[in-house]
Amino acid sequence: MTGPSECPACSGQWPRPEQRIADFDQCIVYLHDDQFFPGWTVLVLKRHATELFALTPPERAALMEEVSNVAEALAGVFNAHKMNYELLGNQIAHIHWHLIPRLADDPRRAEPVWRHDHRPLALPAAERNERIARIRAALKR
Amino acid sequence: MTGPSECPACSGQWPRPEQRIADFDQCIVYLHDDQFFPGWTVLVLKRHATELFALTPPERAALMEEVSNVAEALAGVFNAHKMNYELLGNQIAHIHWHLIPRLADDPRRAEPVWRHDHRPLALPAAERNERIARIRAALKR
Repeated sequence: MTGPSECPACSGQWPRPEQRIADFDQCIVYLHDDQFFPGWTVLVLKRHATELFALTPPERAALMEEVSNVAEALAGVFNAHKMNYELLGNQIAHIHWHLIPRLADDPRRAEPVWRHDHRPLALPAAERNERIARIRAALKR
Repeated sequence: MTGPSECPACSGQWPRPEQRIADFDQCIVYLHDDQFFPGWTVLVLKRHATELFALTPPERAALMEEVSNVAEALAGVFNAHKMNYELLGNQIAHIHWHLIPRLADDPRRAEPVWRHDHRPLALPAAERNERIARIRAALKR
């Protein structure tokens, strides 16, 4: 990614390479570092842009096909009751989508994940890699 | 909208008609009833579907063009520092997008709106209608 040097996504500071799941045309897919909500995944746009309306219509459509593809894979792998899709950028404005499988036994299923205070869950490397491999296998390529 | 009779969006129980901003091809645009975060808007898909990946690619692209159009209008009208885009459906699974302008003087600008406990702010009718008219005037038709 090339963009503003102060952007953590463009400068390669975030997310970490070991979290990478897949490389698509528009975005790179990463497992979120906090796996308290299992399968939480982040799609980071390859080019620097901060708003959906800063993209061209073909870029926007291609990005949303990738979002939809990953969401469908996550719903299957984690047996999601519902998927949550969020493009916020309040801390890192570079376009990135949070895709969060919400499970039937999720602690606060009727609420956004942000309402559930919890200690972030970083997986041990082997477990993280196994989770990444399961998601990768479910993606349509 | 026609769909499951138990769906509040399909049965016409939600949102309320007086909140309506615009009628697009894929969705109907409503001012959110809680205006604590000024300009919070909700786009409700006309047909019943619960996940982005349940739509056809052309439907998905058309919906996202509408989301982008409304987001750009809201960013201009409310002078947003950043837009937030959220498709959750944890309580009402029928596809609806929350578009929330985040302002420079927003109480918790670096956090999702869900982290800011507040009393919901229902506007008096005249003020609500004036806000709806300003958003409507900014939409690309």
